[in-house]
Amino acid sequence: MERNILLTIEYDGTNFSGWQIQPNAYTVQEEVQRVLSILCGEPITVFGTSRTDGGVHAYGQRANFSGDFGIPTEKIMFAANNLLDPSVRIKKVELMPLDFHARYHSKSKTYIYRIANGRYGDPFKRNYCCHVDRPLNFEDMKKAGEYLVGTHDFESFQSTGGTIRTTTVRTIYSLDLVKEGDEITMTIHGDGFLYNMVRIIAGTLIKVGLGKIQPDAMEDIIKSKDRRKAGLTASPNGLYLAEIYY
Amino acid sequence: MERNILLTIEYDGTNFSGWQIQPNAYTVQEEVQRVLSILCGEPITVFGTSRTDGGVHAYGQRANFSGDFGIPTEKIMFAANNLLDPSVRIKKVELMPLDFHARYHSKSKTYIYRIANGRYGDPFKRNYCCHVDRPLNFEDMKKAGEYLVGTHDFESFQSTGGTIRTTTVRTIYSLDLVKEGDEITMTIHGDGFLYNMVRIIAGTLIKVGLGKIQPDAMEDIIKSKDRRKAGLTASPNGLYLAEIYY
Repeated sequence: MERNILLTIEYDGTNFSGWQIQPNAYTVQEEVQRVLSILCGEPITVFGTSRTDGGVHAYGQRANFSGDFGIPTEKIMFAANNLLDPSVRIKKVELMPLDFHARYHSKSKTYIYRIANGRYGDPFKRNYCCHVDRPLNFEDMKKAGEYLVGTHDFESFQSTGGTIRTTTVRTIYSLDLVKEGDEITMTIHGDGFLYNMVRIIAGTLIKVGLGKIQPDAMEDIIKSKDRRKAGLTASPNGLYLAEIYY
Repeated sequence: MERNILLTIEYDGTNFSGWQIQPNAYTVQEEVQRVLSILCGEPITVFGTSRTDGGVHAYGQRANFSGDFGIPTEKIMFAANNLLDPSVRIKKVELMPLDFHARYHSKSKTYIYRIANGRYGDPFKRNYCCHVDRPLNFEDMKKAGEYLVGTHDFESFQSTGGTIRTTTVRTIYSLDLVKEGDEITMTIHGDGFLYNMVRIIAGTLIKVGLGKIQPDAMEDIIKSKDRRKAGLTASPNGLYLAEIYY
C-alpha cells in the first residue's frame, strides 16, 4: 500500500554542497536518497522543504517521500541512521496523508543565525558561526531588528539567483537577538523567506552593530527595495534551518 | 638578541594527523612552523609539550621556539593568527628564559574527555565527543574513577608504541566526572600521562558505565599491570589537551 512519509532531518552542512541534488557535488538530498533507496529497494526521491546552501546547517529540515515498499515505517529511522553519513541524522519519521508535500504545505519556518564576536576566531566555531572580530553594538542591532518584524516587501533582502516569486512580501512573526558571552544568536520566525534573506538580514544587522548603519535607517532600507542598501550576505556557516511548521 | 618564546595554542584536531610533524601528513606542528617561518624569515622548529594524536583537540597546547629574528614578540600572535589555518589559533605569546623547554619543564597537565551518551549520534558532536548509544550508569563511572586518583603504576593503561619510559608510575591529582544532559565530561589532572592513558581510562570508565566492569574491579585492573584487563582505547575525537602547568 502506498505510504507518504515525512522525515525530520538534522545535519552539519560543513562538508555538503547544500541540500539539493546536483551534478559533481555531494549534497544532503543525495545522501538521504542513497540510503532510503537501499532500505526501500527502489530509487527514492525526497522532496525537501528548504534548499539550504552549502555550509548551512539544519536542526529540523523536513522532506517527504512516497511509495509502496517493504520496510515498516517504524524501522526506517534506526535503519537509515545506521547507514547515513554521521553528519546527517533522521530525528523523526511520520506517516502523512498521501497528498501531503513537505514544501508546499509548510506554513512557517524558524531559522537561527549565530555570530561569534571575538578578537580571534574560535577554532571550534569556525564552521558553526559567522566570525566578526571588531566589537558589535548589541543594543543597536536589537533596535534595528525590530523594524523587520511584521509584513513588509523584503526585496532589499533578496539575492538574485533564487526561484522567481510572484511577490517579495513576507511576514516576520518574530526576530529575537540573544547575547551569551562572545556569541550573538538571532532567531527569526516567518511565513517564508526569499533567497538568502536570513543571511542578508544577519549581514545588515552586523553592519548596524559595527556602526556603519544607524538602527533607524532600517525603515528606509526596507522601503528602498534596493539590495545595495542592505548589508552583505553573511556567511553560510552561521545559518541553521531550525524548525518548519505545518 | 636571542629570544625564547612560549606559545599557547588552541586547535580543532579533526583535520590534522595529530601534532607531530611527519611525512605525507598534515600536522599542527607543521602548520605552526610554516607560519612562524614566514614571520621570522628563517626556518623555525617549535617544541610542543604533548604529541596529540590525529583527531585529538587542544585548548591549551604549549610549544616554544627560539632564535634571533626581527618580528617583535608582541606582534607574533596577531600576525600568526592572520596566516594560520582557522582551525589553529595562538592564544598567548610569552617571553621565557633561554633555557626554558615547553616539554621538559611541564609540571602537570589537564585533559578533558567528552562522551555523548544518546540514542543517535548528534551530527554537531561527531568530531568533538565519543558517542556511546547504550545508556551509561554515571554513578558507577564516578565510583570507578575514584580508584584512579593518587599515585599508581598505570601500566594497564598504556598503549604500546609510545616513547619508552623508565617508569609507568604516575600521579593523578584529580579525576572529575560531570553529567550535563546527554553529555558526560571527564576532567583529569596529573603529573604526566602514558601513551593513550587518558583514552584508555575513558574507555575503561565507559565499560564500567555499560555494566561490563564493576567499579570495585578497578583496583585489580590497576594491580594487574595488564593492558588487556582495562577497556578499549576510546576514540580520539573526545579528547582535549586542556592545560599545561609549569
